[in-house]
Amino acid sequence: MDDLITSSANPRLKLIRKLRERKVREQYGLFYVEGIRLVAEAIQQGWPIEMLVVAPQRLSSEFAWQHVEQARQKGVRIIEVSAKVFESLALKENPQGLAAVARQRWTPLSMVNPNAGELWVALEAIQDPGNLGTILRTADAVGAKGVILLEHTTDPYDPAAVRASMGAVFTQQLVRTTQEEFLQWCAQTHPTLIGTSDKAHQDYHEFTYPQGLIVMMGSEREGLSPPYAALCQTMVAIPMVGRVDSLNVAIATAIVLYEIFNQRRQRGSWPGLGANEE
Amino acid sequence: MDDLITSSANPRLKLIRKLRERKVREQYGLFYVEGIRLVAEAIQQGWPIEMLVVAPQRLSSEFAWQHVEQARQKGVRIIEVSAKVFESLALKENPQGLAAVARQRWTPLSMVNPNAGELWVALEAIQDPGNLGTILRTADAVGAKGVILLEHTTDPYDPAAVRASMGAVFTQQLVRTTQEEFLQWCAQTHPTLIGTSDKAHQDYHEFTYPQGLIVMMGSEREGLSPPYAALCQTMVAIPMVGRVDSLNVAIATAIVLYEIFNQRRQRGSWPGLGANEE
Repeated sequence: MDDLITSSANPRLKLIRKLRERKVREQYGLFYVEGIRLVAEAIQQGWPIEMLVVAPQRLSSEFAWQHVEQARQKGVRIIEVSAKVFESLALKENPQGLAAVARQRWTPLSMVNPNAGELWVALEAIQDPGNLGTILRTADAVGAKGVILLEHTTDPYDPAAVRASMGAVFTQQLVRTTQEEFLQWCAQTHPTLIGTSDKAHQDYHEFTYPQGLIVMMGSEREGLSPPYAALCQTMVAIPMVGRVDSLNVAIATAIVLYEIFNQRRQRGSWPGLGANEE
Repeated sequence: MDDLITSSANPRLKLIRKLRERKVREQYGLFYVEGIRLVAEAIQQGWPIEMLVVAPQRLSSEFAWQHVEQARQKGVRIIEVSAKVFESLALKENPQGLAAVARQRWTPLSMVNPNAGELWVALEAIQDPGNLGTILRTADAVGAKGVILLEHTTDPYDPAAVRASMGAVFTQQLVRTTQEEFLQWCAQTHPTLIGTSDKAHQDYHEFTYPQGLIVMMGSEREGLSPPYAALCQTMVAIPMVGRVDSLNVAIATAIVLYEIFNQRRQRGSWPGLGANEE
């Protein structure tokens, strides 16, 4: 039998509300996922879910109920709440009545293997969770393996990142590492790193990208910092002819990723492979 | 002598606060610009500014003061406010102490001339002002002329759009039009329209884009609606190999714009031309 909660002061709901804070998310290793589409994707991907929160008064979609049923059969705890209580949890207005508390999943850096042909993105000091989520979404589209978050990067489990990822947070592998660990790992494994900089002389479109590589992107304001830029075999620039002196970081990442993707497609080394196929 | 305002209940400041609402922005034809960089860009571009708002206690940048001085000499009204009053206006935390109330500027549809080689973007029903601002920023980067807002598109003068544009709102021409007017104009001028759709058979990367054209982008959720899709000579698709079934609209726009830009560069028909040069 499901739990039914009608008081928004319930301790479990209080915890959910606290998951808006990164500190609390990290303390428990949990995050909050809202909306039918995202929760369904998590269930379909077999993502570890701690509990589902359902507001039956707000949930009419049959597609949604099928997924609730599927999760229930797998033993996921379901909490039913009133529409009002659900709204007190929700981040969006007019929420759809389905949310989940899911477990964070981190891939160790040692699992990253660009030398085997994998495409990865590494992000330094990205501040905006919306940008991070959008980068995950594009990385999914081009069949990248995942994203490496170099220290001081915003949290991919921030609700805004999860939402902007449109579910790619469940398909892309997420690695977080320190500069020290990353430098050490590079010294051992010699991955191909390609950085971006508006000061580079190499046009991103005229460069031939090797099959396996890590695309290194710097922060919105500062670009890639010297220790990371020094690691890159090549720095590429995206030309611009307007007045504004830079591109949005998610846009710049997408332009480079699609160039790599197009070259792979042209070489025939990317015959419609999905991100999770081998 | 500048006006000095220390009460945040001052009617002029009340008006500024109301400019957060689209209705009020449209009623007065004004918008609010915040931050040194954006205000400086508006002044450099000779943009029509109604007044500058300066918080001397918060404004230490010499670069900013030079621009304030330049605006003053051109006869722009300068309002000085206390740090506290400025914070009551500001949209961001820790604002930089410089803002402007600027006049909206709209280009009539009849000035759009893709047949003369101009590159334009037309947006249908884009909802998110951050996406719109980011599209303006990318359009600036590839030397597009401007953006045509088909009805029910969010406001480019929304503070979030202005901020995300990084100043491209001052360099890109902005056109707004109804479906009826747009259809009529197309029937008369026969512009080349290229639409995007994830269902199209034409790969965006294998298509040769003509020199002058309008790239038609649909909304975040729905894509391009049938009346606009029917107008397009060609619909192109951006291939994806992941789980997520679409790209962010600002990302999709950027990928197509950079493809067009790269083809122009390869043809040599785009030798470093700036957006505002002919």
